[in-house]
Amino acid sequence: MISKNQIKFVKSLQKKKFRLESKCFVVESSKNVNEILNSNYKIQQIYATKNWIEKYKIRDDISINQVNKNELQRISSLKTASDVLAVVHIPLEKSDFDFSGINIVLDDVKDPGNLGTIIRICDWFGVKNIYCSEETVDVYNPKVVQSTMGSITRVDVIYTNIRRMIQEVAINVEVYGAVMDGDDINQIKVNKNSLIVFGNESNGISKEIKDIISERITINKIGEAESLNVASSAAIILNKFCN
Amino acid sequence: MISKNQIKFVKSLQKKKFRLESKCFVVESSKNVNEILNSNYKIQQIYATKNWIEKYKIRDDISINQVNKNELQRISSLKTASDVLAVVHIPLEKSDFDFSGINIVLDDVKDPGNLGTIIRICDWFGVKNIYCSEETVDVYNPKVVQSTMGSITRVDVIYTNIRRMIQEVAINVEVYGAVMDGDDINQIKVNKNSLIVFGNESNGISKEIKDIISERITINKIGEAESLNVASSAAIILNKFCN
Repeated sequence: MISKNQIKFVKSLQKKKFRLESKCFVVESSKNVNEILNSNYKIQQIYATKNWIEKYKIRDDISINQVNKNELQRISSLKTASDVLAVVHIPLEKSDFDFSGINIVLDDVKDPGNLGTIIRICDWFGVKNIYCSEETVDVYNPKVVQSTMGSITRVDVIYTNIRRMIQEVAINVEVYGAVMDGDDINQIKVNKNSLIVFGNESNGISKEIKDIISERITINKIGEAESLNVASSAAIILNKFCN
Repeated sequence: MISKNQIKFVKSLQKKKFRLESKCFVVESSKNVNEILNSNYKIQQIYATKNWIEKYKIRDDISINQVNKNELQRISSLKTASDVLAVVHIPLEKSDFDFSGINIVLDDVKDPGNLGTIIRICDWFGVKNIYCSEETVDVYNPKVVQSTMGSITRVDVIYTNIRRMIQEVAINVEVYGAVMDGDDINQIKVNKNSLIVFGNESNGISKEIKDIISERITINKIGEAESLNVASSAAIILNKFCN
């Protein structure tokens, strides 16, 4: 059974304002919830069907509310609710950073599916940190969480003034930017300590960030599409940089 | 002004059944409609705001209905309608095929955003043909059309019995399949006349298709994500095969 207050609370977490207030976010579907259970994230409450509870043996210290499918649908942000939904505490932001290796910077990426897919790609290639401009979509947006397919537990997403950050670390790392008219990534030699900047879906990298990029890179175009989706670009570029 | 019958007809095109009956589909947003206008597709009707009509000078032989934003919202499949929506005739399927170069085969890809993104990636890399199993999502689904960003006009998407097709052409081309345990794509030499098969989002390539693949390929995994999104995989693999 789920109370009216619980319904109201879980649904409120679809909005950033209430996530910030309560410091909680929502994770849905078995794959995602199981990844959370196997991570350091702290769960506030699980809502799940009888079937799900019987299938997965959850530790005793986690609060589980057995609900039916209709109740799940009422709190879900999905068109068709899955068998489980978890309310999870937002962890403290990391405060010490290590810029060695490959790091990603996102300059106002707005689409939740794109951020989620980029997190999943980073997890595939072992990239641990994504630095986002403050205008980038919130990582705890339900659509972002959903499309990470659990990778949210293994990639740190940090919101910061990316211009200041790039200026501070540029002495020690190479700063690459994915643009339309840079050097062909298949031809360049890559620096293994790098920041790679990706821009907004419509406008690309902003002028103030472009000015402080040291190497402009491009995916060689053979056909006629005007542009590639930012997550597709990240996939191709990380395959090059991380191998 | 838009009539009740027009509203009913345009909205019906969100469903595959009615698209098949009327042989029409819907294209929304300026970028997509302009790509259609610059292609061989035949437009049945454009619905657009006064602003849009004044900004873009459309040929006289195209029927334009001037409507307001509220009317557009009533026929749109988008959360927020853009300034223009076109009803477009579905072209006849191509009947003669040329399997030279790189061709894509999709085995039951279900997500509209994935198919749309793959079409856009193919257009970037100059891949002209995508062969889809009959269970693959319909290319004229509004979400597919939207996420192609106009590339739908330059890439042919053909629905067929892909098993039979692969068996017929396998003498002349190499048949690659993207799987979890194949050869690292960064290490292989690629054949420039190839079919590359990508599988369903949850289950990968079906057994009956796996059995007739000649080379199994994989994107080298460095981190811990269980899998990559199928469009991300297509981006990485086409960057390798088409360059």
